Amino acid sequence: MLLDHIDSPTDLKKLAPGELPQLAQEIRHFLIEKLSATGGHLAPNLGVVELTIALHYLYDSPKDKFIFDVGHQAYVHKMLTGRMGRFDTLRQKDGLCGFVKRTESEHDVWEAGHSSTSLSAAAGMALARDLKGERNRVIAVIGDGALTGGMALEALNHIGHEKRKLTVVLNDNEMSIAPNVGALHNYLGKVRSDKTYRKAKEEFESFLRKIPAVGGKLAKTAERFKDGIKYLVVPGMLFEEFGLKYFGPVDGHDTEKLIDTLRQADKVDGPVLVHVLTVKGKGYSPAEADSHKWHGITPYKIESGQVVKSVGPPMYTEVFSNSLIELAEQDSRIVAITPAMPGGSGLLGFAKRFPERMFDVGIAEQHAATLSAAMALEGMKPVFAVYSTFLQRAYDQVVHDICRHNANVIFAIDRAGLVGPDGETHQGVYDIAFLRHIPNMVLMMPKDENELRRMMKTAVDYDDGPIAVRYPRVNGLGVPMDEVPLPLPIGKWEKTREGDFAAVIAAGPMVQVAEEAAELLKREGLNVRVVNARFIKPLDEEMLRELAQEHLPLLVLEETAIAGGLGSAILEFYAQSHVTNVSVSLVGIPDRFIEHASIKEQRADAGLTAEHVAAELRSKALRVRQKAT
Amino acid sequence: MLLDHIDSPTDLKKLAPGELPQLAQEIRHFLIEKLSATGGHLAPNLGVVELTIALHYLYDSPKDKFIFDVGHQAYVHKMLTGRMGRFDTLRQKDGLCGFVKRTESEHDVWEAGHSSTSLSAAAGMALARDLKGERNRVIAVIGDGALTGGMALEALNHIGHEKRKLTVVLNDNEMSIAPNVGALHNYLGKVRSDKTYRKAKEEFESFLRKIPAVGGKLAKTAERFKDGIKYLVVPGMLFEEFGLKYFGPVDGHDTEKLIDTLRQADKVDGPVLVHVLTVKGKGYSPAEADSHKWHGITPYKIESGQVVKSVGPPMYTEVFSNSLIELAEQDSRIVAITPAMPGGSGLLGFAKRFPERMFDVGIAEQHAATLSAAMALEGMKPVFAVYSTFLQRAYDQVVHDICRHNANVIFAIDRAGLVGPDGETHQGVYDIAFLRHIPNMVLMMPKDENELRRMMKTAVDYDDGPIAVRYPRVNGLGVPMDEVPLPLPIGKWEKTREGDFAAVIAAGPMVQVAEEAAELLKREGLNVRVVNARFIKPLDEEMLRELAQEHLPLLVLEETAIAGGLGSAILEFYAQSHVTNVSVSLVGIPDRFIEHASIKEQRADAGLTAEHVAAELRSKALRVRQKAT
Repeated sequence: MLLDHIDSPTDLKKLAPGELPQLAQEIRHFLIEKLSATGGHLAPNLGVVELTIALHYLYDSPKDKFIFDVGHQAYVHKMLTGRMGRFDTLRQKDGLCGFVKRTESEHDVWEAGHSSTSLSAAAGMALARDLKGERNRVIAVIGDGALTGGMALEALNHIGHEKRKLTVVLNDNEMSIAPNVGALHNYLGKVRSDKTYRKAKEEFESFLRKIPAVGGKLAKTAERFKDGIKYLVVPGMLFEEFGLKYFGPVDGHDTEKLIDTLRQADKVDGPVLVHVLTVKGKGYSPAEADSHKWHGITPYKIESGQVVKSVGPPMYTEVFSNSLIELAEQDSRIVAITPAMPGGSGLLGFAKRFPERMFDVGIAEQHAATLSAAMALEGMKPVFAVYSTFLQRAYDQVVHDICRHNANVIFAIDRAGLVGPDGETHQGVYDIAFLRHIPNMVLMMPKDENELRRMMKTAVDYDDGPIAVRYPRVNGLGVPMDEVPLPLPIGKWEKTREGDFAAVIAAGPMVQVAEEAAELLKREGLNVRVVNARFIKPLDEEMLRELAQEHLPLLVLEETAIAGGLGSAILEFYAQSHVTNVSVSLVGIPDRFIEHASIKEQRADAGLTAEHVAAELRSKALRVRQKAT
Repeated sequence: MLLDHIDSPTDLKKLAPGELPQLAQEIRHFLIEKLSATGGHLAPNLGVVELTIALHYLYDSPKDKFIFDVGHQAYVHKMLTGRMGRFDTLRQKDGLCGFVKRTESEHDVWEAGHSSTSLSAAAGMALARDLKGERNRVIAVIGDGALTGGMALEALNHIGHEKRKLTVVLNDNEMSIAPNVGALHNYLGKVRSDKTYRKAKEEFESFLRKIPAVGGKLAKTAERFKDGIKYLVVPGMLFEEFGLKYFGPVDGHDTEKLIDTLRQADKVDGPVLVHVLTVKGKGYSPAEADSHKWHGITPYKIESGQVVKSVGPPMYTEVFSNSLIELAEQDSRIVAITPAMPGGSGLLGFAKRFPERMFDVGIAEQHAATLSAAMALEGMKPVFAVYSTFLQRAYDQVVHDICRHNANVIFAIDRAGLVGPDGETHQGVYDIAFLRHIPNMVLMMPKDENELRRMMKTAVDYDDGPIAVRYPRVNGLGVPMDEVPLPLPIGKWEKTREGDFAAVIAAGPMVQVAEEAAELLKREGLNVRVVNARFIKPLDEEMLRELAQEHLPLLVLEETAIAGGLGSAILEFYAQSHVTNVSVSLVGIPDRFIEHASIKEQRADAGLTAEHVAAELRSKALRVRQKAT
């Protein structure tokens, strides 16, 4: 095995070019086998095996900077930089991170998780290099899907303006996580389809070089002529318009051609774009056949490609999905909008049932939000389905276009709370803090899957402005479903358990944790009240006043950042109402980024367990009583 | 005067085409005269007089939807839709809004204030129209500067994909608020410069139509040939690649040609882009000569173009500006980054002194933030200078790229707090709420201009991660300046006044308000302590514990949203520290959008005055004492 002798890029460089295809094969086998046990982003990594080999073979990491957009396609990079032995721990607590991670290796220079940041990062590193008078290369690897993200286009515009030496590798696999949409996609399709372009280009460019530079009007005509001819033969004209020299398209599974093209591109003293055609899931037929499903995958059987299914009640995503279709059958105003996540957001069923009411706008959260606002102002009921962490990118549009217009947009915020193995960049723990202070916003979170259906109904019935329902990346509780889900009164909470020892105010899955904590204390003869704060905004002020009057010690339990969260809102309410005789404790996510682990482990770390809550309540009630005596 | 008879678009349509130039002249005189008294966005509006006339002459507002990007160039639109009589109240409390405002008129269908939202809005309105089976037109007017904003490019990509009928009017005045940058700008320059394009285009297009469609390989060659020829003659090829049919460039000050071109474009059953060349400030020579200065202007003398200058201590922006240059003289790691606001952010002096360390990236806040992160990781000290409200657009990048990397980025957040006549979309009242919960962030606000200099020094010395200094759009206090500004200890507050009746914790200009309130109460024999909370994060926990031990009633005074603000942070701290014997009141911005008025009026509305604070303290201390007895 060649792989046995590769512990660093230096080892790789010792191989003959002819040995690289074999190495690629070995890497594929390694990944297919290892991920069958751990799960992970298989298809994207199988697509970049040769590309990553070529980059490390040619360049000199970490002096040369490799920037992987999103960063979930860096497994091969990790293998080639001394981390092969850690793949059994992939995406597990204290194990190998599923994304690029600076603390893991000096070869990891830029972390991501969200899409479309790599070009800005590359521009920044190239500028810093030039200011410091250094001479290293900067190489960004970005997918065709990520290129539609607005910030990538902002960066492209700036890169073309600055003209610093850097390489953009366009990893074009004809799709992002979902099938790609948009004009850029069509453009790339045109470029890809015609392989005769490349040869013709070379011939014509040599011809063009022979046209002498002349002055005055003639020069202008000659320039235009040159441009026109170029367009005839240069497939990457769009990028050349942006000021990047275009190379490609090149077969991304041919190491020799890749190295050759990258080497040519390297001679240019300015920004270049190397267009690489890859196949997602390359070399593993189940993944090649359905690369969406195999984008990120749970453990599977290698032979059959069968995924090890978890059993249990339906995921919240699935309940949302069915609920939306039911509601849309009765209300033709409902449309669904997704920024390139139709599968993850549970919209495939809706898209099949109502293709003309489904809008996948590509990786473009900002546009998705403002598009929703405009459709709402024109009388539609847009459902903007988005992951909590990706909604961060549309914060300004939520403030400026949706809430300021008081537009009837429904937010379906998936992956709210801790998300497990995707780690820091994907934790949905800030949306309460970044949405709660925006005027006109209504924020809900269901304690179980039946309540999610009721909240969807509530949202559709609500015609007074924006309304959001946030739900976690976990299974429901298996509760019975109402035949006809009824709407909830806005801003009204629910007591799920009576008690006079203390009260826990919780939202979402934390209601269940509070119930379990109450059960633990019940065994000790202590009765804890549990309140389901199903509206995070507006608060149930009446119930809060009641609680204060009863002098119950309160504990607010939430799977979100404490700073700016539900507990914070409750404290603000009491302060603004001049209620000072109430003792409120806060249990939630502390002020640090939460790394990859299982959701259970992450919850335990943050104290979001029945045992911890019970212990807090015991000591809290003790403190309150001591003070009272 | 033709203008006297125009009260609605219907009146406008009664004019003969030949009368429109005269009307344009009258509108210009009206605007130049009215704005000389009120101030406002003069130059942008002078640039779109003929364009706005043409749109209202040709289309049928409000059935047809006019969407103005940013919305500060809608004065002419307001004049033509019955609001001429209200221009004396422009940008004043209860007066005419400086932007598009839905509550003002049925002709105002889309509000903005931030850039680059119009294409998403147009896409949404066109989709809603088609779903409802209606037939109105949708027209977006967007500047060349706004086009570089990522979300505009996201929208363009989606518009090209959807192929719905809508019109994008590119109002190309060769600059945004600042001189435009980037590859797109260069591209437009190329298009503009060659006027022979247009004629040639028409001839060639007629020729191209005659090429018959043929099948197979030949067709492909013919297609490519067609494309190539098109590129030779069609200036707007870039937009055609995006899937929009291109018309222009057309002289934006020739009503006849404008109407003619728009009419032609209207025949296309799909998205079109009409490229209109305008001159910012057209018809008023001081504004034509310096359209940056005249973008948004205070009252001026018409004859001389002399601006009525306010007297007083320097603005915070100016103090920042000088401080940055001083620091950069001593530290070559410092670079400055602005998203198209070099003037407004006070970076012109820096740009002159250190041209190679200044990066204006165009209207591209997201890219600016991530670029800063990357430069910081490579050892630079980027100063990201940005208005509070525009930083909203980079929220995700601040979380994901700057704070998660713990990158040494310095945020210079201008226009923090209430901003006066720009109103709702420009209020800098959310940045504490959207930054405070992000791990690793340090947040400062100076009580006066000397403290701003000390904070700049603190920020440059700080090498442990991101640090922000926010300052308001007002004059300093005229305090003496330290010869050598010393850094502040991180997280340490300052008592500016002793007292035992109550304590006010305030930040920024609110420290002065607190001092004034304390003076009022002193006359009544009540001594109020004033604390300058110069660090909003981290809090001065030691001082907070001391205050709690003294049982002083506390009032937190802030010119930001109460929800998620400084007061909220203090309440969280006490709750997490199990301190329950402290009474905290909150005075700040309530949960609604604050409309245009003077800063003084806006502060009064929110209770941010010495009188209101004094009254609150009196009744608060009374409550606390009554409870104690």
